[in-house]
Amino acid sequence: MRAAVMYGAGDVRVVERPDPKIVNPSDAVVRVVASCVCGSDLWPYRSMPATDTGRPMGHEFLGVVEETGADVTGLTAGDLVVAPFTYSDDTCDYCVKGLQISCRNGGRYGFDGVDGGQGEAVRVPYADGTLVKLPVGADSALLPSLLALSDVMTTGHHGAVTAGVARGDTVLVVGDGAVGLCTVIAAERLGAERIVLAGRHEVRTGLGREFGATDVVAERGEEGVARIRELTGGGVEKVIEAVGTRQALDTALGTVLDGGTVSRLGVPQYEQGPIGPAEFMRNITLTGGASPARAYIPELLADVLDGTITPGRVFDETFALDRTPDAYRAMADRQVLKALIRP
Amino acid sequence: MRAAVMYGAGDVRVVERPDPKIVNPSDAVVRVVASCVCGSDLWPYRSMPATDTGRPMGHEFLGVVEETGADVTGLTAGDLVVAPFTYSDDTCDYCVKGLQISCRNGGRYGFDGVDGGQGEAVRVPYADGTLVKLPVGADSALLPSLLALSDVMTTGHHGAVTAGVARGDTVLVVGDGAVGLCTVIAAERLGAERIVLAGRHEVRTGLGREFGATDVVAERGEEGVARIRELTGGGVEKVIEAVGTRQALDTALGTVLDGGTVSRLGVPQYEQGPIGPAEFMRNITLTGGASPARAYIPELLADVLDGTITPGRVFDETFALDRTPDAYRAMADRQVLKALIRP
Repeated sequence: MRAAVMYGAGDVRVVERPDPKIVNPSDAVVRVVASCVCGSDLWPYRSMPATDTGRPMGHEFLGVVEETGADVTGLTAGDLVVAPFTYSDDTCDYCVKGLQISCRNGGRYGFDGVDGGQGEAVRVPYADGTLVKLPVGADSALLPSLLALSDVMTTGHHGAVTAGVARGDTVLVVGDGAVGLCTVIAAERLGAERIVLAGRHEVRTGLGREFGATDVVAERGEEGVARIRELTGGGVEKVIEAVGTRQALDTALGTVLDGGTVSRLGVPQYEQGPIGPAEFMRNITLTGGASPARAYIPELLADVLDGTITPGRVFDETFALDRTPDAYRAMADRQVLKALIRP
Repeated sequence: MRAAVMYGAGDVRVVERPDPKIVNPSDAVVRVVASCVCGSDLWPYRSMPATDTGRPMGHEFLGVVEETGADVTGLTAGDLVVAPFTYSDDTCDYCVKGLQISCRNGGRYGFDGVDGGQGEAVRVPYADGTLVKLPVGADSALLPSLLALSDVMTTGHHGAVTAGVARGDTVLVVGDGAVGLCTVIAAERLGAERIVLAGRHEVRTGLGREFGATDVVAERGEEGVARIRELTGGGVEKVIEAVGTRQALDTALGTVLDGGTVSRLGVPQYEQGPIGPAEFMRNITLTGGASPARAYIPELLADVLDGTITPGRVFDETFALDRTPDAYRAMADRQVLKALIRP
């Protein structure tokens, strides 16, 4: 089969890889119908050391079940399914409490002999625990929004949930990438009354407004902090940081009210951060993290199916699989918000 | 009047200071009946640069109202009152939401012309907003436990509340100082079923057991982490860190389960801490901070008055005011857990 493999920074190639086969009885092989490039794929795209073997890329996909292992009981060939961005067994203590991202037997696509999602097919471990069956056909117009459930929409929802967003709240979302925009959807869905979106890319913040952002702040750094504080009468109780840079964290800490919550969704591009006496005296809660996407899909799926939310609008360009390198380039150059890939 | 003043590391003296008088109409002058030395007083005791002017010490006290300013309506001369460890106006946005520690007009004893609690009398700003009237006489046997409400007991309670301790929980308390022990009381009071106390001072951990600790772990560092994980079948969902050192934080992070909460009560002795990709992937929530003691006093006062909780047991030695330097020395040498001071 054909699949995208990264061989180093800036070096993504679509190459021939072995067709996936059932290895363990809990596996399913899924023929990919749609996948995409994640903002987090851009970190290795900028920094990965060159390698001969390469790393299969992509962790967001939906597709049709082609074959199932002997232990798979909930899925059959022909089912359309969406995959959360990590696989999980749905039976360990973490899965049982809804923290599938920490599954004792779980893992990431593109590692440990598991295919990436940016390819023609994927062997999915723990298929029963991982995959969610979709009650539509592979030609449904809802496909982009259903694909968004594999990561960006469930991640945005995780931010809103962990920040404790509730009816009537004022919420700040830092970052106008696909996750930030899906966070706006999630905050609006949970009843936030005022949603301030910090982002400077006008097309993206425009979409953010359509999703429910009531205010947009384009300034960054200290200027951005001052503007947000001015707009909100001093600061915000609930802040969701959807970038991962230290500057974005500083914006969050600079605008959150004492006693408030900063939920992080962007994978931190730093090891240490400011959690000293100043933050302690202010009673700031730092929460969030990698989303247990699997836990949220059923609830959000219902809202996608009835059209309440349309996170698929974050996909602003579609690439054929062979053009995956162009998709990376376009996203890295910020010409494309989020690239959908069709094998 | 006589009052304790710190002039530098290891240099506490009881000196003559001006008798406090009403300065602002919201002030009250309180004649101190009992005060004490806080674990946090030991940080400057170890590190404060020498100074000629010195800093009045002490932020935990109870006493009798001697005089009130023209605007004070809730207190009259002769009332026995306990002071939370910061003063607050009870009317600003933070006070109204129960975060008096962040009061817009609040402040700390011993700073900005306000007396410390380790002395004969204190001018208390915003007396109506700050002081809580006690329905007992100044000779009550409950005095030590009532004094504990000014800081250590309300701080321990803050840890249990922010960690979300609820009936049936397993909780880890890191630190066997007065705050750690009061945290055990608070966790037990909120229904925790299993309370693991990490501490190596046997007298203190013994008192912790009487307060409700079900397990004591004396090992520190990696050994302590391993022991706690073994004891709890892998880790703990709710951890309260009552020390403030980086080692204590590392113990908390090493023992908390993915998706769990670390609540900090010890003022951090570090500026930066580990909040990078590893902690992010694990969905650890970092919360807690300086306790809004004023918010918790009414609720905990009821339990002190009816004998449900006895936090005053953390005071294991009483010093006359003139012996305050000895009290500091004894606490710094860990000969005394918490020193009560009687003017």
